[in-house]
Amino acid sequence: MKDYKIEINLTTKRKTKPQFDRLEFGKHFTDHMFIMDYTEGKGWHDPRIVPYQPITLDPAAMIFHYGQTVFEGLKAYLTKDEEILLFRPEQNMKRLNRSNARLCIPQIDEELALYALKQLIAIDRDWIPSLEGTSLYIRPFIIATEPYLGVASSKSYQFMIILSPVGAYYKEGMNPVKIAVESQYVRAVAGGTGNAKTAGNYAASLKAQEEASKTGYSQVLWLDGKENTYIEEVGSMNIFFKINGEVITPALNGSILEGVTRNSVIQLLRHWNITVVERKISIHEIHQAYNEGLLEEAFGTGTAAVISPIGEFFWKNEKLVINNGETGPLSKKLYDSLTGIQNGTQPDPFGWVVRV
Amino acid sequence: MKDYKIEINLTTKRKTKPQFDRLEFGKHFTDHMFIMDYTEGKGWHDPRIVPYQPITLDPAAMIFHYGQTVFEGLKAYLTKDEEILLFRPEQNMKRLNRSNARLCIPQIDEELALYALKQLIAIDRDWIPSLEGTSLYIRPFIIATEPYLGVASSKSYQFMIILSPVGAYYKEGMNPVKIAVESQYVRAVAGGTGNAKTAGNYAASLKAQEEASKTGYSQVLWLDGKENTYIEEVGSMNIFFKINGEVITPALNGSILEGVTRNSVIQLLRHWNITVVERKISIHEIHQAYNEGLLEEAFGTGTAAVISPIGEFFWKNEKLVINNGETGPLSKKLYDSLTGIQNGTQPDPFGWVVRV
Repeated sequence: MKDYKIEINLTTKRKTKPQFDRLEFGKHFTDHMFIMDYTEGKGWHDPRIVPYQPITLDPAAMIFHYGQTVFEGLKAYLTKDEEILLFRPEQNMKRLNRSNARLCIPQIDEELALYALKQLIAIDRDWIPSLEGTSLYIRPFIIATEPYLGVASSKSYQFMIILSPVGAYYKEGMNPVKIAVESQYVRAVAGGTGNAKTAGNYAASLKAQEEASKTGYSQVLWLDGKENTYIEEVGSMNIFFKINGEVITPALNGSILEGVTRNSVIQLLRHWNITVVERKISIHEIHQAYNEGLLEEAFGTGTAAVISPIGEFFWKNEKLVINNGETGPLSKKLYDSLTGIQNGTQPDPFGWVVRV
Repeated sequence: MKDYKIEINLTTKRKTKPQFDRLEFGKHFTDHMFIMDYTEGKGWHDPRIVPYQPITLDPAAMIFHYGQTVFEGLKAYLTKDEEILLFRPEQNMKRLNRSNARLCIPQIDEELALYALKQLIAIDRDWIPSLEGTSLYIRPFIIATEPYLGVASSKSYQFMIILSPVGAYYKEGMNPVKIAVESQYVRAVAGGTGNAKTAGNYAASLKAQEEASKTGYSQVLWLDGKENTYIEEVGSMNIFFKINGEVITPALNGSILEGVTRNSVIQLLRHWNITVVERKISIHEIHQAYNEGLLEEAFGTGTAAVISPIGEFFWKNEKLVINNGETGPLSKKLYDSLTGIQNGTQPDPFGWVVRV
């Protein structure tokens, strides 16, 4: 790796840390952050680590009006030997650049970004919680900063990385979630931005989420925008089904986010000689498998929860209860294996883990 | 109208104004802005007019990550008698609240917003250019400000209004634009956020726009996300066609923005006893009408251009040249009538104009 020059300006006022045994997701942030600027004609410049601080922008900055922005999410884990582990971080930087391409944001130097990320984590390593299941959530993001109200690509951007210590996702053991199948709202459609990690996809999802919550469902199952039939994602996670011994996940079709956890689950399953198929799968097929008693498990995959077992789908006034609403053995095994690799307590046959 | 209490804090440093005969769109901003805050449990509070100033936000503020934001665009005109006119501003405030509902942002008091807007314009009235075709562009917008990385609705927001003097859209007379029919990218789909005025729709449009520009086309014609067949919008405008004497515009279907100019054009045409139909219309129907010599005119409608005549469509390697690439008589008449009503030089039979 090249020796990138990153200016470092350490804080003189360290913050009081939150209690690490009762952390909430995404509420607390560490002492420092990484920033790099982009100026047309000059490219990305002035990479620097500075005290965590507010962003000051002109009210006409394009991020506030036209949503030209991308982000990533990954985690760092502290091992019992006080080593810091990252899980496939190069995949997040690659995806960040794929998202950049879709959103007309200039490409970043992935190696520099990864180098900066490691530097930042090393500086704020006291903020990595060590209790089981806890981790340091990492949020790289890029925003359009030019003060201009024309609908066009911005001529200036900021790339930032902020860090947030997060608690265990499952505080009282894995709890399967109840999911409402969404029939009115659509998250994304082929040709849109669904396969980019960009703000608008999440903004579009809030309304359905809010309505599902009112009826006691914690997330929605998104169907495709064209035929309202084929399964896309669950909440902000990818989804897998185990039907009659075979694992099926929706094929990447342009509107589904290419999850790093999704890809890791596919590789793990193949490593275990379990058949896993990426293909179109309709809600009708799920319903039929359920009726025939063949729907064995369903689970979401994502950075926050890693594996999120699904206990029930609600579709057209019918409750499809999966595995008696309990966590299935495959979901559990995947969770244990992935988190074990991530936190260094299990071997890493794929070379996924990167030491800081 | 109620007497709303808006705190006013005038600037002590007035900016140098740009040259009003060479204004660009959305590049210059006036001396003041309006701000109002929303806090969960407290509602919207502290409406105030302050010197135009940067916004300072935590890097975790949700606007930077999940795009929960809405905006509006309208214009103020200065008449020869130095009166300030707004065009149907209550329609923009209504639409702002419709967009808010879709994006899970709390409703604003439309009357208060309109009152604040008028106060702000009165304070910055020196910034309204008076040359023919110039105006003061008004940008109300709301952003999610809570510093939280969970995917959920924000618990705090800021509503702002900024003002920008803008030059004549057509500096050398109306120039018809050349439009590429977009077959790969999609702006929005039914069930998505296409009928809300929100950042993500514009972010999604940049890539297609960029690729069209490379081949010499200034905008794209958006087809529907389901079948890639039915016409939706052109660039960030609504679209109308005149075919064999009849005017047709795509019906509002959930993915098309309900433009104030679109609605005004429909009302004007009916007032003139010209048949205007809102219905689904496919690109194939346009192609057929063109081949039969029945496609007389096409034009976009929006706040910025008011009427934007279309001189050519590029579709499947074929150029469809409309009215010899020149502005058609109906486009011209609509432009003259609408801008005449807006700037007070023509009668206002619909009561559209509001005096500040």
